[in-house]
Amino acid sequence: MIDITDPSVGMVQLVTFTVEPARQQEIAGIIVDQVERTVAHHPGFVSATYHLSFDRTEIMNYAQWAGKDAFDAFAEDPASQDLRTAFANLDGVVSITGSAWQIYRAVTPAAAR
Amino acid sequence: MIDITDPSVGMVQLVTFTVEPARQQEIAGIIVDQVERTVAHHPGFVSATYHLSFDRTEIMNYAQWAGKDAFDAFAEDPASQDLRTAFANLDGVVSITGSAWQIYRAVTPAAAR
Repeated sequence: MIDITDPSVGMVQLVTFTVEPARQQEIAGIIVDQVERTVAHHPGFVSATYHLSFDRTEIMNYAQWAGKDAFDAFAEDPASQDLRTAFANLDGVVSITGSAWQIYRAVTPAAAR
Repeated sequence: MIDITDPSVGMVQLVTFTVEPARQQEIAGIIVDQVERTVAHHPGFVSATYHLSFDRTEIMNYAQWAGKDAFDAFAEDPASQDLRTAFANLDGVVSITGSAWQIYRAVTPAAAR
């Protein structure tokens, strides 16, 4: 269970990988295996959920962090920079972009309120 | 509680609004209020969580749907099309883009496994 509205989450990082469509799932598998071995050990890491676009051209990671400080410490770690370089150099990866977010408000079905 | 890995979610729709930074939060408030009155009543709607980018230039909705069929039925409803037009015409909204995703795999902290 990964709660989007978990109050201990201070920052959401969206990472989008543009990929060759024929390799979408293979690349996602490689990335998830690496993230389990590396990022999942970082202090302040809460979760990373990988999504496949229906049109097969992208992979998106919705990542939760305890806060921006924890994420910045991770991003500045040389091992993290090596990981990003390795992902960018994977066969079939065209580009990688990231963006940082805070939760604002959530809407649930009217019938359930 | 909104569970990213909820198995009843068949499709994730990401909607990103590019906005004038000074109006980011005001626009997000207007959109959320409208979505609570409209989209939240649609069959197959599971949740919508609004995020504000740290750089203030974007608003992102992470929306869960029961499946692509439910989302397509919503998207083809004339009322939904009116809503999108209304959002695009809000003062301070520059552009709106959407993309459709399926959950692939989730990673949790190594210490918790």
